[in-house]
Amino acid sequence: MSKLSIWTYDWVPEGPRGFVRDLRLRWACEEAGLTYAVRTIPFDGRETNHLAQQPFGQVPFLKDDELGVFESGAGLLHLARKSDKLMPRDPVGEAETLQWTIAALNSIEMVTVPWWFLKISGAENTGLTGWMGKRLDQLERVLREREWLAAERFTVADLLMADVLRVSEVRSFGDRPATEAYVTRATDRIAFKKARADQIGHFAAADQKRAELT
Amino acid sequence: MSKLSIWTYDWVPEGPRGFVRDLRLRWACEEAGLTYAVRTIPFDGRETNHLAQQPFGQVPFLKDDELGVFESGAGLLHLARKSDKLMPRDPVGEAETLQWTIAALNSIEMVTVPWWFLKISGAENTGLTGWMGKRLDQLERVLREREWLAAERFTVADLLMADVLRVSEVRSFGDRPATEAYVTRATDRIAFKKARADQIGHFAAADQKRAELT
Repeated sequence: MSKLSIWTYDWVPEGPRGFVRDLRLRWACEEAGLTYAVRTIPFDGRETNHLAQQPFGQVPFLKDDELGVFESGAGLLHLARKSDKLMPRDPVGEAETLQWTIAALNSIEMVTVPWWFLKISGAENTGLTGWMGKRLDQLERVLREREWLAAERFTVADLLMADVLRVSEVRSFGDRPATEAYVTRATDRIAFKKARADQIGHFAAADQKRAELT
Repeated sequence: MSKLSIWTYDWVPEGPRGFVRDLRLRWACEEAGLTYAVRTIPFDGRETNHLAQQPFGQVPFLKDDELGVFESGAGLLHLARKSDKLMPRDPVGEAETLQWTIAALNSIEMVTVPWWFLKISGAENTGLTGWMGKRLDQLERVLREREWLAAERFTVADLLMADVLRVSEVRSFGDRPATEAYVTRATDRIAFKKARADQIGHFAAADQKRAELT
């Protein structure tokens, strides 16, 4: 059995706790029953202190023995090859899971993240509202007719899509009942709750140590 | 041998010719020596005429016998499993290719496409300029030290990253010589040139037929 470690920051401020993307990898490991360690790099100096592991200065990255994988989406697909709980093994089920995983990254998150970024930067009108509404409506239409996106069961594509959609500003953008029910269904899973609680606990535990240092 | 078909529009206006994303799949098939057919759906009515195949009303999608894959990134990863010309077969090389493929989609294109969208929408200041400059600078730093992104050879990750970067507005955004040399290196490949010429020819051939109909 290979030795998995999920790398994240040693600390982050309260705002992003519960949303840092190491949660995606934690959640996947919890769903699949994969044992993993959590390892850290310093939050201070993060722009440049781990460029060899993550060229954009972000977290998470995954280590699997000597092999390294950055980009949470790539880490998820790497983990999905280890367990059919994350991705079915039949070619059609695997293709469906792959396409919806990429759709979460490149059709939905490609608009939600820039929209959110412009919104928190204080833009009155982000210019992306129409595009975002259209994409979320298209997804709502799909989710009205199925419980999970691919292969008629929960897969890593749902894990990722739900993580993209659960951001509060995105979740409250318009009224899309099937999408809301889907996000609730995904985040009610035990594996998600454990991953989220573990991440929040990890960062909270660093508060005291940090307070002593500063 | 499975029967591959790349689905795109029957026609597009001149502006996007040479940039419609079926080019990514054509390029990959040309690199890998995979035989494929090009099939079409009508450009008119595209928002709703193929939602069963592509829930966001876009192109391309790939058919591999009875299996369907939408999202160009997913189509590329699907094709990459068929040929080691697109992705090495050793676990480290495969992980490197996967992470850089996802980086093209979710770290670079996630900012270049919304930036470009806002720019062509007429925004004076897109609000995304700083983020885009930072990401492209980080990539420039990587490309200063290597010819190709993953596994010390051309892979599907380069195909995708170069396709993201070759958009003229992105290419002329700042002065990044290593990135410019990389895009030139990738687009000088015979497989790219054939894919691009074939796409342009495909849409141009439809001009006359369309003129007769309208």
